[in-house]
Amino acid sequence: MFGVIMAGGRGTRFWPSSRKNNPKQLLDIIGPDSMLQMTIDRLKKINSLEDIFIVTSKELAPKIRKRVKGVNRKNIIVEPKGKNTAPAIALAALHIKKIRKDAVMAIFPSDHLIIGAKQFLKTLRSSFRVANKKDALVTIGIKPTHPSTGYGYIQYNKKEPLLKLNVFKVKAFAEKPHLTLAKRFLKSGDFLWNSGMFVWKADIFMEEMKKHMPDLNEIMQKIDLRIQQRKRFNDLWDSIEPVSIDYGLLEKSDSIYAVEADFKWNDLGSWSSIYNVSTKTKDKNVVRGTGVVLDGTNNLIESKKQFTALVGVSDMAVIATSDAILVVPKDKAEQVKDVVDYLEKNNKDELL
Amino acid sequence: MFGVIMAGGRGTRFWPSSRKNNPKQLLDIIGPDSMLQMTIDRLKKINSLEDIFIVTSKELAPKIRKRVKGVNRKNIIVEPKGKNTAPAIALAALHIKKIRKDAVMAIFPSDHLIIGAKQFLKTLRSSFRVANKKDALVTIGIKPTHPSTGYGYIQYNKKEPLLKLNVFKVKAFAEKPHLTLAKRFLKSGDFLWNSGMFVWKADIFMEEMKKHMPDLNEIMQKIDLRIQQRKRFNDLWDSIEPVSIDYGLLEKSDSIYAVEADFKWNDLGSWSSIYNVSTKTKDKNVVRGTGVVLDGTNNLIESKKQFTALVGVSDMAVIATSDAILVVPKDKAEQVKDVVDYLEKNNKDELL
Repeated sequence: MFGVIMAGGRGTRFWPSSRKNNPKQLLDIIGPDSMLQMTIDRLKKINSLEDIFIVTSKELAPKIRKRVKGVNRKNIIVEPKGKNTAPAIALAALHIKKIRKDAVMAIFPSDHLIIGAKQFLKTLRSSFRVANKKDALVTIGIKPTHPSTGYGYIQYNKKEPLLKLNVFKVKAFAEKPHLTLAKRFLKSGDFLWNSGMFVWKADIFMEEMKKHMPDLNEIMQKIDLRIQQRKRFNDLWDSIEPVSIDYGLLEKSDSIYAVEADFKWNDLGSWSSIYNVSTKTKDKNVVRGTGVVLDGTNNLIESKKQFTALVGVSDMAVIATSDAILVVPKDKAEQVKDVVDYLEKNNKDELL
Repeated sequence: MFGVIMAGGRGTRFWPSSRKNNPKQLLDIIGPDSMLQMTIDRLKKINSLEDIFIVTSKELAPKIRKRVKGVNRKNIIVEPKGKNTAPAIALAALHIKKIRKDAVMAIFPSDHLIIGAKQFLKTLRSSFRVANKKDALVTIGIKPTHPSTGYGYIQYNKKEPLLKLNVFKVKAFAEKPHLTLAKRFLKSGDFLWNSGMFVWKADIFMEEMKKHMPDLNEIMQKIDLRIQQRKRFNDLWDSIEPVSIDYGLLEKSDSIYAVEADFKWNDLGSWSSIYNVSTKTKDKNVVRGTGVVLDGTNNLIESKKQFTALVGVSDMAVIATSDAILVVPKDKAEQVKDVVDYLEKNNKDELL
């Protein structure tokens, strides 16, 4: 089994801490090390993993090569341009199937929080077994704890006999739902959160891609030739239509299994998640760095240098860096993308 | 007539911009120069003003001596300790009555916004005339434009024949009222805002002080002797009970007139006032410095260096300096004092 870490994300959700050249996966936002390094370290503990690959962007590759410990430099795969997850995974598959055609690849986001090393290993083992024995696409699902509107959902087939207690045949994928729908999902009991972690054989993936994404497959075959000839493939890559693995493949294939994770997971998708996973004061505030909340609850302060005082404010996230400050209600934390859009439109490159 | 500028205020209301050694009167918070310098410049335009005195604290005196233009150094009167307005005014009266017993002193806060130089002059002339002819204590009142809960009120006697159209005999003083009461004041039509500007003869003031604040008067007589002997009077000053001129004298004397101001006035009592007097965007936001509001209205951003983004936030004041940030709903802006209290209690002197 080979590990593939997806580390091409731009990380706009953590502005102003995250920047174009310093996205979330390179920030030590939740632990002692960068999210990417923590992901690598987690995978290094798995004995059955033969090697680790990182897929990232041209812009981030130099920094990742310099910073990252424990990954062979030649295993850092560079996308000439961001084309969403399906092409990135296909590029990794080209590399891995060259090592061994039926090698299993396990794909991980570079910037999620995972608690429980043993449980993580156990879930991976189950996933490997299913991917190997069933020649199936395996997705790791998380048992929902609340009706989240921030995650995609996987519906599994209740009637299909279980392979094991925590392995299910997948019936359908659902994109981020509205609250009413999310509540229905939670109640019906046959939904899992889509974690963005996948396990499958490289050759099975290629077959499925050929079937469900023939255009991408065709370009990838040409790219494969170029790679063999040690030639650049930017022009071919440019012609790829961006598409997510969920939309391009998983929603269409009928050979998908879900393994329910044993570990605790949070995608850390916004400042609001950082609040959720952090230790709170008795007033339910989180102060990361220096600051105080007077007469207010449920706030997140993130400020390493400037002492940040909130007075009579609740449910707010206030993030300060040396050159920028963000103030956003926690439940609107996803809207931070609008700031990044604004900065792009107004050519404030120094803040991006 | 002599001008007396009260410049001893600690200016906690404008934290984090105002600090112990840099209070509001020394900030260029609303114009090209400090509030104090703008006050001096306003008074310098009045030909009938013989000289200007500044009363300030021991802590601020060196900075004021250094920075201020147009005031004789020996006219900077230093309070050994802050004892509220009555003792400060009494100290100024001691100095002025030495120049000429029946000199008129006109007392001004150092940190208010006044718009309309001609109108200001006109109001002062009326006040001078009343103070001189009636041997009365004159207070300058502002016609209320809304039921403010942030100002004290002056009730005048409707029945008493007017001296002039804008001169009234004062019936009572009222402290900052609750909203219901403020609305009643506004409706009744015989209330003015208490501006904290006063005009009276030095000797009349001393007489009234003797009558209504005998303890203070006694100490001031002793201080007067010490000043004549060029001796320090810190020990005497220490024994003074702090009291405001409103509470100590104006509420008790029955020889008080109010002159209704012709000029536009704002005491700039909080960040909220800064919002009120500033030019707004079409979304009714005020951005002083660098920043943007997305999906929000009625906000104040004050940040010279850090780009400050508010997303989905309304009615908020966000103030950033190089070492501190304040986030407070505009209608709770007065609570910023709680932050200063917190910093004092927690010995964060570098932020005070």
